Amino acid sequence: MVDALKAAVIGAGFIGPVHVEALRRLGIEVTGILGSSLESAQKQAAEQRLPKAYASLDELLAEPGLTAVHITAPNYLHAPMVKQVIAAGKHVICEKPLAMNTADGEELLTLAEQAGIVHATNFNFRFYPLSQESREIVQRGGLGEVYQIYGRYVQDWLLKETDWNWRLEPDLGGDMRAVADIGSHWLDLTRFITGQSVTEVCADFATFVPVRKKPKKALATFAGKELDPEDYELVEIKTEDYASILLRFDGGARGCLTVSQVAPGRKNHNAYEINGSGSSLAWNSERVDEIWIGHRDKASELMLKDPSLMSPAGRLAAEAPGGHAEGFRSTFKQLYKRVYRAIEAGGPPAEPDYPTFADGVWALRIGDAIKQSAQERRWVTV
Amino acid sequence: MVDALKAAVIGAGFIGPVHVEALRRLGIEVTGILGSSLESAQKQAAEQRLPKAYASLDELLAEPGLTAVHITAPNYLHAPMVKQVIAAGKHVICEKPLAMNTADGEELLTLAEQAGIVHATNFNFRFYPLSQESREIVQRGGLGEVYQIYGRYVQDWLLKETDWNWRLEPDLGGDMRAVADIGSHWLDLTRFITGQSVTEVCADFATFVPVRKKPKKALATFAGKELDPEDYELVEIKTEDYASILLRFDGGARGCLTVSQVAPGRKNHNAYEINGSGSSLAWNSERVDEIWIGHRDKASELMLKDPSLMSPAGRLAAEAPGGHAEGFRSTFKQLYKRVYRAIEAGGPPAEPDYPTFADGVWALRIGDAIKQSAQERRWVTV
Amino acid sequence: MVDALKAAVIGAGFIGPVHVEALRRLGIEVTGILGSSLESAQKQAAEQRLPKAYASLDELLAEPGLTAVHITAPNYLHAPMVKQVIAAGKHVICEKPLAMNTADGEELLTLAEQAGIVHATNFNFRFYPLSQESREIVQRGGLGEVYQIYGRYVQDWLLKETDWNWRLEPDLGGDMRAVADIGSHWLDLTRFITGQSVTEVCADFATFVPVRKKPKKALATFAGKELDPEDYELVEIKTEDYASILLRFDGGARGCLTVSQVAPGRKNHNAYEINGSGSSLAWNSERVDEIWIGHRDKASELMLKDPSLMSPAGRLAAEAPGGHAEGFRSTFKQLYKRVYRAIEAGGPPAEPDYPTFADGVWALRIGDAIKQSAQERRWVTV
Amino acid sequence: MVDALKAAVIGAGFIGPVHVEALRRLGIEVTGILGSSLESAQKQAAEQRLPKAYASLDELLAEPGLTAVHITAPNYLHAPMVKQVIAAGKHVICEKPLAMNTADGEELLTLAEQAGIVHATNFNFRFYPLSQESREIVQRGGLGEVYQIYGRYVQDWLLKETDWNWRLEPDLGGDMRAVADIGSHWLDLTRFITGQSVTEVCADFATFVPVRKKPKKALATFAGKELDPEDYELVEIKTEDYASILLRFDGGARGCLTVSQVAPGRKNHNAYEINGSGSSLAWNSERVDEIWIGHRDKASELMLKDPSLMSPAGRLAAEAPGGHAEGFRSTFKQLYKRVYRAIEAGGPPAEPDYPTFADGVWALRIGDAIKQSAQERRWVTV
Repeated sequence: MVDALKAAVIGAGFIGPVHVEALRRLGIEVTGILGSSLESAQKQAAEQRLPKAYASLDELLAEPGLTAVHITAPNYLHAPMVKQVIAAGKHVICEKPLAMNTADGEELLTLAEQAGIVHATNFNFRFYPLSQESREIVQRGGLGEVYQIYGRYVQDWLLKETDWNWRLEPDLGGDMRAVADIGSHWLDLTRFITGQSVTEVCADFATFVPVRKKPKKALATFAGKELDPEDYELVEIKTEDYASILLRFDGGARGCLTVSQVAPGRKNHNAYEINGSGSSLAWNSERVDEIWIGHRDKASELMLKDPSLMSPAGRLAAEAPGGHAEGFRSTFKQLYKRVYRAIEAGGPPAEPDYPTFADGVWALRIGDAIKQSAQERRWVTV
Repeated sequence: MVDALKAAVIGAGFIGPVHVEALRRLGIEVTGILGSSLESAQKQAAEQRLPKAYASLDELLAEPGLTAVHITAPNYLHAPMVKQVIAAGKHVICEKPLAMNTADGEELLTLAEQAGIVHATNFNFRFYPLSQESREIVQRGGLGEVYQIYGRYVQDWLLKETDWNWRLEPDLGGDMRAVADIGSHWLDLTRFITGQSVTEVCADFATFVPVRKKPKKALATFAGKELDPEDYELVEIKTEDYASILLRFDGGARGCLTVSQVAPGRKNHNAYEINGSGSSLAWNSERVDEIWIGHRDKASELMLKDPSLMSPAGRLAAEAPGGHAEGFRSTFKQLYKRVYRAIEAGGPPAEPDYPTFADGVWALRIGDAIKQSAQERRWVTV
Repeated sequence: MVDALKAAVIGAGFIGPVHVEALRRLGIEVTGILGSSLESAQKQAAEQRLPKAYASLDELLAEPGLTAVHITAPNYLHAPMVKQVIAAGKHVICEKPLAMNTADGEELLTLAEQAGIVHATNFNFRFYPLSQESREIVQRGGLGEVYQIYGRYVQDWLLKETDWNWRLEPDLGGDMRAVADIGSHWLDLTRFITGQSVTEVCADFATFVPVRKKPKKALATFAGKELDPEDYELVEIKTEDYASILLRFDGGARGCLTVSQVAPGRKNHNAYEINGSGSSLAWNSERVDEIWIGHRDKASELMLKDPSLMSPAGRLAAEAPGGHAEGFRSTFKQLYKRVYRAIEAGGPPAEPDYPTFADGVWALRIGDAIKQSAQERRWVTV
Repeated sequence: MVDALKAAVIGAGFIGPVHVEALRRLGIEVTGILGSSLESAQKQAAEQRLPKAYASLDELLAEPGLTAVHITAPNYLHAPMVKQVIAAGKHVICEKPLAMNTADGEELLTLAEQAGIVHATNFNFRFYPLSQESREIVQRGGLGEVYQIYGRYVQDWLLKETDWNWRLEPDLGGDMRAVADIGSHWLDLTRFITGQSVTEVCADFATFVPVRKKPKKALATFAGKELDPEDYELVEIKTEDYASILLRFDGGARGCLTVSQVAPGRKNHNAYEINGSGSSLAWNSERVDEIWIGHRDKASELMLKDPSLMSPAGRLAAEAPGGHAEGFRSTFKQLYKRVYRAIEAGGPPAEPDYPTFADGVWALRIGDAIKQSAQERRWVTV
């Protein structure tokens, strides 16, 4: 019998329970959940058969033997909560964005490093088996020199003026939206795969739905489209529904990213294509188990995820044999597997195999440049 | 805090751990695991952070407060183990095939019904969200009168003479192979969706690899292809690599199923198409989140799984919002969610929303007719 | 300047004009067209800018310098027209089926061989570039030993009781329908690719629309679905809407074919998959420029038609560079290119690179066995 | 019998013969061909069974009864040849780009208008049936307000330093390459569909293969990849292999285009997605018969080209019934069908249903802005 690992989860909305399950799949004890209200926490605790609904972060941190804390609260709470968790000496896994601005993010990174705790930013897309495999392919030179990195992350859940979510309120979600919410995932994923970082950006933003109807009672994320409109107040929207961004990378690659939350029929389409001097890779999050490997002088490949055909890194992230579907929820398990391995090993490894606060800060810094570029309508160096 | 549910799992190979995780995701305590040897059970218990590795079924059944037992041992052990579990008064979830022959299966069904326990056969394909949705579409008349039900379940993991698995040995796996292992899933799934049962069959079997090299040490399922051949013995194979089966259904539909375990490049391709007088449905297990809905007089639809567009039944089985990938492992969670709801309700419901031993027996009966038809090269009535 | 080749075309419906264009693309002069009535021929002649509308086959055959005749009239006219064309000493290209029964077909083959003319049956599917390439792949051993050949040809244009076409009348179209119209294409194509001929069949037929409404005025093929129902007479339908057929091949392969003309959303879906001991091929007629090449021990390939990646045979049939769409109409051009090359060479080559009357007779013979098998509900040897 | 229409074609490379065939399919007499040398013209004339190989443009223009001239010579010859054809009073169809610079293009447009001839620029992509249908869908409001127009046109035929073509030489092809060759098609097509014109651009160019090996003997377009390298000279390349361009449109839409001729595995991938306030459209040139119509509140559609489901405009461009493949070559036929209808009607219609020189000039003007933007690394107003 192994020693117990104990985790508590903050957030009783859509993503908190995803963390709970992922932890349990690893045999990590989840002690309880903290919500936006005691009622919501109690409801989730009952649904998830969790022992406790915490009334406060203080109560949560007082849990005996607690190893780590997962933070999935609204964005504006990330920084203060992370600080408190670090102060309590617990390891911490935080949803992205790490903070509401880069300065706050950098402070959290410094604090976490000083405390010697294990810290992670929840860039879960890296943990689809084919994301791991793509990185291996690029790193071993399978594409040759990388020329072009481009793609899009598009959704439709905020298409209508009646679609509402706390992410639309700058005080709660930040003053960028589509880029920060979903663009950041694309940027992290392509950097993870190619090893190239963005150095210059030129962005164009648009807000196609400039006024929205905010409901007078709260709605859960993604649930909005199932509800009928009732009583609303009109709210002017400043954050971007859409962005396209020209990209230059430190390794010489060029690229382009389009993000939108008003693209009808696109539910959660995070797609990249990478063209190199030798071959290409293309993948999207609506067919996570397929990767296209493009060739000039022989037939292109369409690889269905298959552990027996993959490199060790890809194989390690696979949850099932070839042809058995991998799922969104498993990426969380795979991420935490690596985080808790670091925890059991006593602290952050020299070369983490999971995204840390440093990656969270990087994403914030890129975001600053993108925002400035869109405001000033010019190229900006990161 | 809810009352504890406790389950134990038999089987430390590929699928046993999948049961363990699915139970944990539901907040059901997994007390331990029983393997083919104490060593394999201990290894799995450590990997899964499970409290116990049982030495015997007796020890497992003596676990205090145990609610239910999951059986994923090789096929020939299903019937004797199920009997012992029923005798101990525990609820039981058994992998398919329920037994090595129909008579045994019928006996198990009778015993389970007499004992009043909750019994389930692990036909997990029913629990992809789009399987549930397909059933809803057909049941509400969305296809009109069902004309044709056809498809295939094809794989490549037994392509080579050096591929070996216990399923190739009739004493352990049964005297049908491809039909029983994978054809049964297709037959159960299309019956679940259409509500039509097969009444007549005409089958053709082939064994394309008539002699195989059996390794002298055991290999885990699906792991074979990663290993180099070493020392083998030659074994003559009698069970079918391939079958095609003409089908007639009690509701008037006609159809055809092809199964193969020697189809290069097909990893786990379970595909059906259903054509009705109004519309069509097509789905396959390598793109679980997409269903094609064919129309004559308007554009056909390609529905990406999206809870907000689905019926209540489909939505209930969805693990994530639209565009977020569902996974093979979640189908087990969804199945057990319904089984344990029945357990908590005190016993089997009048109309179970999960596959029971009756479904397991049905599959065995169809299998008998298929086998006889292939042997006698003629149509056989079920 | 080369010597003139002159052709005349019989049939002013959907497919006759396709022959006209294909001939013109090759620089072959089309002298005129013969229709079911002089009016229909005149209408088509004007639309196609053709010099003549013939009033009769006699007039057509009297055309000075005429090289060859293309027959696309309704099926029951094929045999008498072919006989007359042969008697006139012209080369002949006939749409399939070659005749209404095998005996007639055999007579035509004998007559054509005695006359020394070039004769062709219009199995145009062979001339998609990827059909040619598939044949090359199989013939050079790219799949290893062929195990399984299966697929389907499904359409929806006869789904409704108000859908009508002369093919539904046994006197005009023959006493098999779906199998003869479209199944014959699939059978010819897979035989062309694999070189294996069917030796035994076991078929199941169904007529899902047993009574249809025949309009009192004639409709062009495929045009039916655009018209509103008007005045109809009820006609009992005996020919099959649907068939599934178990297949055994002379090279040891097994297989299965499903055909249907009542499959909503399937417009013209002719799909095959061939699995061998080494690799697999899959293709369908709704994505003619893509072929899937399945592998067990490496990533499968998705080859987009690209002359620069193809064998000489495949490249010769390609109409455009990689990524430029090939079309249905080009298959006719490619077929006739080979037929007229034979004509210019003075007569049929020893090994024709196009389908001859012998292929037309083969298709009729297989059809006989399939029909008998469906009637007697048993396996039949070809 | 209708009056004869006679056309002559300039260009004996890849695209000239495509014009020849398209004309013949329409029953238009092709009098002969003019090549870069008399030899190449004679070779093509023989292959195509054409009556004449012209020795000069003068000889070609002296052809009795000549109706129109098709120009497919290298880009630098377009303007002088068009002028000469206009001066001879013939109608003219010119490949894009219309000229080497905007001033020349404008002059040609003025001359053509003054002469009253029918003039066309060969933007053939508009004539895939689903391009026509997409325009209809947008024009009738099927997408609602258009928000986003984005996509890419990517190829791999210039990937390697040994790939060579006259388009790489600014004197022959112009001082932009990827944008002018293929980007212009994308820009014309999306403008045709949406009716929105680009007003501002911000572009980033890259030349990933800065030095190429020019063979000492000439190669045909697209044929390069089949040849082994022999004797080369090193040539510095200034024109872009890659461009990404941010776009603003006069109707309020935003967008982004990526073009590349160094994208391994992409043979000729011209893809757009258009998102509106109501629905979306997505299409690409490697699957010309499929269009995805995205929806938020119901299942998205995947429409296979089917005349019976399409608007009159889409149906008119369809060459075959649903499920029968349309081809690249048919788009030329469809374009010329409309051009020659205008010719027969006596001159350009008030609202041409084909692309004219005005569209050719528009494309040059957008190109100027894109080039300037890339050079100055800033937004430029068109």
